[in-house]
Amino acid sequence: MRILNSGITEVRGVKCWGYKRGKLGLGLVHCKGSIVGVFTKNKLKAAPVKVTMEHIKRGRVSGIIANSGNANAFTGKKGIENAKKMAKIYAKELGVDESEIMVASTGVIGIQLDMSWIEKTFKKVFPKLSDTREASIRFAKSITTTDSFIKEVVVKNKNYTIAGVAKGAGMICPNLATMLAFIFTDAKLGSIELMRESLKTAVNNSFNLLTVDNEMSTNDMVLLTSLNKKLVNFDDFTKGLTKVCLELSKMIAKDGEGATKLIEVEVIGAASNLDANKAAKKIASSLLIKTAIFGCSPNWGRIISALGSLDIEVDENITIKIANSSKEICLVEKGKPLGTEKLAQKLMKVSDELKIIVNLHKGDARGYAIGCDLGYKYVRLNSQYFT
Amino acid sequence: MRILNSGITEVRGVKCWGYKRGKLGLGLVHCKGSIVGVFTKNKLKAAPVKVTMEHIKRGRVSGIIANSGNANAFTGKKGIENAKKMAKIYAKELGVDESEIMVASTGVIGIQLDMSWIEKTFKKVFPKLSDTREASIRFAKSITTTDSFIKEVVVKNKNYTIAGVAKGAGMICPNLATMLAFIFTDAKLGSIELMRESLKTAVNNSFNLLTVDNEMSTNDMVLLTSLNKKLVNFDDFTKGLTKVCLELSKMIAKDGEGATKLIEVEVIGAASNLDANKAAKKIASSLLIKTAIFGCSPNWGRIISALGSLDIEVDENITIKIANSSKEICLVEKGKPLGTEKLAQKLMKVSDELKIIVNLHKGDARGYAIGCDLGYKYVRLNSQYFT
Repeated sequence: MRILNSGITEVRGVKCWGYKRGKLGLGLVHCKGSIVGVFTKNKLKAAPVKVTMEHIKRGRVSGIIANSGNANAFTGKKGIENAKKMAKIYAKELGVDESEIMVASTGVIGIQLDMSWIEKTFKKVFPKLSDTREASIRFAKSITTTDSFIKEVVVKNKNYTIAGVAKGAGMICPNLATMLAFIFTDAKLGSIELMRESLKTAVNNSFNLLTVDNEMSTNDMVLLTSLNKKLVNFDDFTKGLTKVCLELSKMIAKDGEGATKLIEVEVIGAASNLDANKAAKKIASSLLIKTAIFGCSPNWGRIISALGSLDIEVDENITIKIANSSKEICLVEKGKPLGTEKLAQKLMKVSDELKIIVNLHKGDARGYAIGCDLGYKYVRLNSQYFT
Repeated sequence: MRILNSGITEVRGVKCWGYKRGKLGLGLVHCKGSIVGVFTKNKLKAAPVKVTMEHIKRGRVSGIIANSGNANAFTGKKGIENAKKMAKIYAKELGVDESEIMVASTGVIGIQLDMSWIEKTFKKVFPKLSDTREASIRFAKSITTTDSFIKEVVVKNKNYTIAGVAKGAGMICPNLATMLAFIFTDAKLGSIELMRESLKTAVNNSFNLLTVDNEMSTNDMVLLTSLNKKLVNFDDFTKGLTKVCLELSKMIAKDGEGATKLIEVEVIGAASNLDANKAAKKIASSLLIKTAIFGCSPNWGRIISALGSLDIEVDENITIKIANSSKEICLVEKGKPLGTEKLAQKLMKVSDELKIIVNLHKGDARGYAIGCDLGYKYVRLNSQYFT
């Protein structure tokens, strides 16, 4: 498995383009294939989510139309009409059924789409659809909101390719993940059911580790399109797909609004997988821990307090380490503070990717979560986003 | 019922004093009476919590000893020994059994107490115990950590007085509440069971609305001491006690680390009380909503998204209002945005206490929560707290 720093046009048969000016963007993907998706569990789903959930039932795709700057959420009947209209415009141009167009939106909630802008911009973007590297970058850019960089990844295996693009989200941690991800492959899994199963597994082991349970935005979706060219082994493919999703997840975490550090949390020695995952998620989403890491303060007491607040098997016999890719500092060993804060602080200061490793010494279950630190820029971005 | 801006020495028979220098503080209260308490549910309880939970079983109190700057949490056997020693020193001076002394601590986790400092400071504080107004202020000050003001309240009824002092906590919302509250009254309820029942009711309707479920710090405690002088009606007393707790809760929220605004959330029209309380707590603790309020941005879309993320009965038929003590602006009426953001923003800019009112139009259950906004100062305080 090779990981390339490239885009979705690496998968032959995928064409795309995008336009972004100021806060508004519109992107198109064109490719024929089978499609499955995973959608937000938020009860107040945005109009494009509802429309795409309906369209995807048939499992066939010809195009994806996505806009940024306006979430088309909490927009009632008119919102649904507008989301359908986005599909219709594109379907008409391609000469396909509307159900073969998936619609995605991200941005502010509660404002109707400016459909004349959408139509006008569509006319600019559509003629430019192409399979060049530039095209994938343009598309990746068009779906961003507060993202500070575009998020693309390609996994190449012997005989097939999986390529993904995502729109990150400041809000992703710890609260709401406004996240869009579109993944394409020339691999053929044989059935829609197998595709669905594979995507579910991959998402559970990547994007879902980013967010706190059930706390999803009104607009989240992850779509997997297969161009059904090369028959592959299910497990092998799922591994590759998980890798794509995990890499995109890490990019999203790293680009959390105002984030300066990616945080991976590994909990080992837990009594159960449930305990381990609860603990990992709690640590990755704790505001106090996130601000401490922003300040390069190895405040492990906050990890203790967070662990104690959970309904898991835990006592003072805890080991806590902090690590970067080359070094590991043990802060607390089996309940005993080692007085290594100064060393840990030094390590934190020079690392933009940190791992917190916690051993609960209760069993051998493991858990994992991804997050980011929280600094002044988060406050700035989120206190001013609306106005 | 009259509310006075005064301290615990308003209750005749209560003596106290305190000392605070830099991050370290020590305070003493002396009074004879019955005592009940409510303690953190955190699994990794601090040593003073464990010791006080043991001592309080007998229901008799002669004194409270509290220190700030060091939580004596995650300190193993030695921590327990030190907490017991604090009780012992005070008990010896008063000539009472150790079980009549309650111990409380707040501050950094994982560092052993400097017992020589505690003993030295005790000797300074003990001789000064008195029932003056200054004494109650000194005590209130001695238990603070990052608090920017002391928190005291007195409720006077026809024939009795309830007075409380609390140590707020930046961490209180949305994550961890390091909160200490000591309440005193000359009222007599007749039995320890009735006192316990009254305190539980009051705490559930005040302090517990401040924190997110189960997320309590290692050190929280609320103690109620009765000097058993004036027999009172249970319901009447509980109302007064709830008032004391609620006022202290609001002060704590208002003084959330770096907070500039107190936020009260009222959810009405819910299908059940559980739904209503879930919704209120969620809104009061949402990071995105808190930062929006800090920026005076009436971003009601975040309220929508937060509501949709919950497992409650909800659809787009939602009404959202924002209010201060004199004015109310409706932002969304039964699902229809009213375009009143500019007016709301104006109101937010001039108010340091805001109320968010949400009507779910699903039934007639109500819920309530208390929180605060989140700004740059929170990040500054919490990224540097440890080092």
